[in-house]
Amino acid sequence: MIKAYAALKPKSALTVIEYDPGPLGRQDVEIDVDYCGICHSDLSMINNEWGMSAYPLVAGHEVVGRIAAVGADVSHLHPGQVVGLGWHSDYCHHCSSCGSGDHNLCATAQGTIVGRHGGFAEKVRANAASVVALPEGMDAKTAGPLFCGGITVFNPLVQFDIKPTDKVAVVGIGGLGHIALQFLRAFGCEVTAFTSSDSKTAEAKELGAHHCINSRNADEIAAAAGRFDFILTTVNVKLDWNLYLSTLKPKGRLHFVGATLEPLDLNVFSLIMAQRSVSGSPVGSPATIKKMLEFAVQHDIKPVVETFKFDQVNEAIAHLESGKARYRIVLER
Amino acid sequence: MIKAYAALKPKSALTVIEYDPGPLGRQDVEIDVDYCGICHSDLSMINNEWGMSAYPLVAGHEVVGRIAAVGADVSHLHPGQVVGLGWHSDYCHHCSSCGSGDHNLCATAQGTIVGRHGGFAEKVRANAASVVALPEGMDAKTAGPLFCGGITVFNPLVQFDIKPTDKVAVVGIGGLGHIALQFLRAFGCEVTAFTSSDSKTAEAKELGAHHCINSRNADEIAAAAGRFDFILTTVNVKLDWNLYLSTLKPKGRLHFVGATLEPLDLNVFSLIMAQRSVSGSPVGSPATIKKMLEFAVQHDIKPVVETFKFDQVNEAIAHLESGKARYRIVLER
Repeated sequence: MIKAYAALKPKSALTVIEYDPGPLGRQDVEIDVDYCGICHSDLSMINNEWGMSAYPLVAGHEVVGRIAAVGADVSHLHPGQVVGLGWHSDYCHHCSSCGSGDHNLCATAQGTIVGRHGGFAEKVRANAASVVALPEGMDAKTAGPLFCGGITVFNPLVQFDIKPTDKVAVVGIGGLGHIALQFLRAFGCEVTAFTSSDSKTAEAKELGAHHCINSRNADEIAAAAGRFDFILTTVNVKLDWNLYLSTLKPKGRLHFVGATLEPLDLNVFSLIMAQRSVSGSPVGSPATIKKMLEFAVQHDIKPVVETFKFDQVNEAIAHLESGKARYRIVLER
Repeated sequence: MIKAYAALKPKSALTVIEYDPGPLGRQDVEIDVDYCGICHSDLSMINNEWGMSAYPLVAGHEVVGRIAAVGADVSHLHPGQVVGLGWHSDYCHHCSSCGSGDHNLCATAQGTIVGRHGGFAEKVRANAASVVALPEGMDAKTAGPLFCGGITVFNPLVQFDIKPTDKVAVVGIGGLGHIALQFLRAFGCEVTAFTSSDSKTAEAKELGAHHCINSRNADEIAAAAGRFDFILTTVNVKLDWNLYLSTLKPKGRLHFVGATLEPLDLNVFSLIMAQRSVSGSPVGSPATIKKMLEFAVQHDIKPVVETFKFDQVNEAIAHLESGKARYRIVLER
C-alpha cells in the first residue's frame, strides 16, 4: 500500500489515502519520494480545470527520490539511485515522435498525474524510460522543479538552437521564468526580463537578466522594437501579443510555454513582413532532461524554492495560490 | 521620357502618361520592358488599399525585359541582357538583414511601385542589385510572375529547409499556389492542394498535387489530422486556422504568404501540445530569386499565364478582378 495526499473531489483540501499499486510492471520502477515540487498544473488537475481529472487524484509531478525497486526488465537503474520524474510517466515508444527522440510530443504519452497517481506520496511508480538519474553534484532538494518547470523553459532553447549571440527575452518571472533567466545567462545570451512586478526587478537581475521591462508599460515595450531574436513567454494571462511581436527582429520567434485560454489574435502582416514565427512546446524528452541536468550542475543553476513538509501540503498549495511564492514550492519529508 | 500606364487616382482606369526619370543613377539600370505580370498587390496599390499610394501611380512589379542602359558603377549587367525585376527595386545594403543575405527583410527596402514607377511601362529603372538575369533556357514570356508570385512561394521552402521526405500542403490554388505545387513536386515532396473550387482539382493534380482536399469541407480537413510537415497558405480570406493547425504533425509549421486583415485567432494549446509553429514571409532576396530561376529551368517549371497586350491593361485588370484568371496574367508588347 502507498500512502498519498489526494483530492477526493475538485477544489477540496487534500487528505491522506492509501492505495494498492499492484505488482510492479516489468519495465517500471518504484521511487521513494524525498521531494516533490508543486506546479500550477497540479492545481489545474486538482480542480479539474482541464476536464480530465479522475478522483481520488494524487498530484505531484516534480519528483526527486531514491529508486526503491525496479521491474524485471529494468537494467539501467538500480535501487538506492537518486532520480527525478516529471510530467510524463510513460511513452508509447513506437510512434514517429518517440522514434525521433521527441517523446514529449508522443500523442499517447502518459501524464504522471493523469489517470495515475503522482508524487504527493511516499512512493510513486513510472516507466523506467521516463525517469532520469540526478548527475553527481546536483542538489536533490532544489532539483524537483527542474523536471517540469525547468525542462519546459530549457527545451525550447535546444529545440530552436538558441545561440550565445542571441538577444532573448523572458515574459513572466515566476516559477518558470526565474529558471529561464538562469539558463539564458549561462547560454551567454543578452537577457531581458518582462515583468509586471517592479518588486521583482532586482531579483530578476540577480538571476541573470541584463535588462528589465515593465510588461504593463506599453511605451517601454514599444521602445524595444526589433530588439529580440527570441521571446519565451511563461505567463497564463492575455497580453498584447502584437506589441510583443513588434519587439522581435526579422526572423525572430515568439514562443509560448504558458497557455492562455484566449486565442492569440495575431496580426498576419507582422508575421509576414519580418518573417517572424510564433510557436509553443510542452516539457521535454528524457534525453533533453538529462542534458539540462548536466548543464545545471555545470553552471550551478538551481530553482529558488520555498519548502514545506509533505503534511503541510494544503498550506503549501494556499501559498502557491496567493501568488507570493518566490519562486517555486517544494514539499519535503 | 518614359511612356507608362498610370492610375491618376484610386480605383480609376489606367491612362497613358509620360514621365521624366532624370539622369540614370550610377548604380541603377534601365530596362526595356517586354513583359510584366499583374499581381493582386498591383490592384491594392492602384486602389490605395494600404494607404501608401502616390499618384500618378505606375504599377507592375513582375517585369521581364532587356537591359537598355547601365549606370556608371554597374559592371555585372550589360545592355541587351534579359533580366527580371520583382517587388523590390533597391535595398539599404547596410542593415543586418542585407548583410545576412536577407535583403527582402530590409526595413527600408524600396518597393518597385511604392514611391517610384513600375513596369506597366515601356521602361523601368531599378538598382542593379535588385535585378536578376534570366538563366539560359528560361522562357521570358512566362518568367515575370516568378519574380513576385514565384519567389513568394519558393523562398519559404528554402528558409524552412523543406525536404523531399516532407508532406506539404498548399492552401489556395491561384496565382501563387499553382506555382507552389510545381516547386513542391520537383522538391520530391508529397503534395496536397487545399482548394475551395472542385473545378481546379484536375488541374491541381496536373500541376503537381498528389491529393486534393476541399477547403470548404471541414470533415475532409479534419480527416487529415496530423498529416503535414508544412502548410503554405496563399489565400487572403479568413479560414478556420485552428482546423488547419490540427492537420500538422508534431513540429509542423503553418506558413502565411497570403495576408488576411483579420487576426489569426490561434489556439495556444494547439501550438504547445505538438510544438507547432506559425509564421509568414515576404518575397525573397536576389540570391534566392537566382536559385529559384535555375531550379525552375532545371525542372521546366513555368507559371501558367494568360497574356494581354500592354494597351489592354484595363481589360487585363478586369479579368484579374473577376477571379477567372488561370492562373496569372502577363502583359506583353
